[in-house]
Amino acid sequence: MALKLYVDLMSQPSRAIYLFLKLTKIPFDLKLVKLREGEHFGEEFGKINPFRKVPAIDDNGFVLTESVAILRYLARERKVPDHWYPSDLKKQAKVDEYLEWQHLNTRLFCAMFFRSKFLEPMMFNRPVEEKKVARFQGEMEKCLAQIENIWLENGKKKFIVGEEISVADLLAVCELEQPGSKHTYSCLKQ
Amino acid sequence: MALKLYVDLMSQPSRAIYLFLKLTKIPFDLKLVKLREGEHFGEEFGKINPFRKVPAIDDNGFVLTESVAILRYLARERKVPDHWYPSDLKKQAKVDEYLEWQHLNTRLFCAMFFRSKFLEPMMFNRPVEEKKVARFQGEMEKCLAQIENIWLENGKKKFIVGEEISVADLLAVCELEQPGSKHTYSCLKQ
Ligand SMILES: N[C@@H](CCC(=O)N[C@@H](CS)C(=O)NCC(=O)O)C(=O)O
Ligand SMILES: N[C@@H](CCC(=O)N[C@@H](CS)C(=O)NCC(=O)O)C(=O)O
Repeated sequence: MALKLYVDLMSQPSRAIYLFLKLTKIPFDLKLVKLREGEHFGEEFGKINPFRKVPAIDDNGFVLTESVAILRYLARERKVPDHWYPSDLKKQAKVDEYLEWQHLNTRLFCAMFFRSKFLEPMMFNRPVEEKKVARFQGEMEKCLAQIENIWLENGKKKFIVGEEISVADLLAVCELEQPGSKHTYSCLKQ
Repeated sequence: MALKLYVDLMSQPSRAIYLFLKLTKIPFDLKLVKLREGEHFGEEFGKINPFRKVPAIDDNGFVLTESVAILRYLARERKVPDHWYPSDLKKQAKVDEYLEWQHLNTRLFCAMFFRSKFLEPMMFNRPVEEKKVARFQGEMEKCLAQIENIWLENGKKKFIVGEEISVADLLAVCELEQPGSKHTYSCLKQ
């Protein structure tokens, strides 16, 4: 039975898993969960993730949520090329370091900026709260500078960890493209 | 050369690593970084963690930050009893699931409640912002209910994952005790 992938492609961590499966050619059944239609609050999805969030996977009865946990599980379980998630303990720990750091940095601030600037005004049909947006924009910009200056060593490095692409880069790009993506806005407006 | 552990014991993720090292009897040199005295902004600590946060380790020249990445690295590198971080792929993924979930739940809300209710008024000598505190208290209580009802299956389970204690429980207790700890308050007032 193929791996089932529960995602909404408007969701940043969902896209990271989707990209990973495509790039590593792991076969999967795409199960779209339409967040804007509230499908994640339905009975069926509640059995997959009681926290009602995407992404989630069902690997032959083994259900797992949380994008970072899913990437790690798939990288080891499916034996993908080592650069995605190095088996060397120290290199792996350095990829883990970004995977853990990003939750309360890239993820939190890019998502909150996007949410306050675009999603909330649209969802609740209310004016933009400029002060809130400015606060998250400031935090996001500080975070972008840290990615540029610390993770990428002032732009000297091409990848977040080491010399090759890893799951850290996939998670990062999916969060980073969200606030500026024309595609995202046009999807939202449909 | 012994493992160097950079922590402030007022910091929740610092205590989780400290507890783990004590419980597994891994020898280490304790390097206290006094956050309240701004020692994490000093030149020496900047070489260890450019993000200026504790905890961090230096394992014979290999420097690593982020509590979850550190716990994973140590559990594998030092070969501790399996229950702390199971080697079985699926069991390990379930521990990972909590480790990832907690950043934007237990960690974020308990810490923000604690910060807004106690730390900020004390640090900046200003009145408590009641609305802010109430918002974080609400989020924290929702999170506590999810730990009780979902992770611990309505209190039927003793540990967050499986039948035995794991690093997930250590991280959880360190975050959960912070908002209610008399000890923490008395340290803060010193
Ligand atoms: N930490 C989780 C975050 C998952 C998450 O926040 N998913 C969002 C979409 S990006 C979601 O499902 N939101 C639905 C909701 O909150 O109602 C992960 O990395 O998988
Ligand atoms: N995600 C990090 C969080 C580290 C963190 O936030 N540490 C706090 C203490 S609990 C700190 O060093 N704060 C100093 C500061 O922000 O100035 C981890 O799990 O290690």
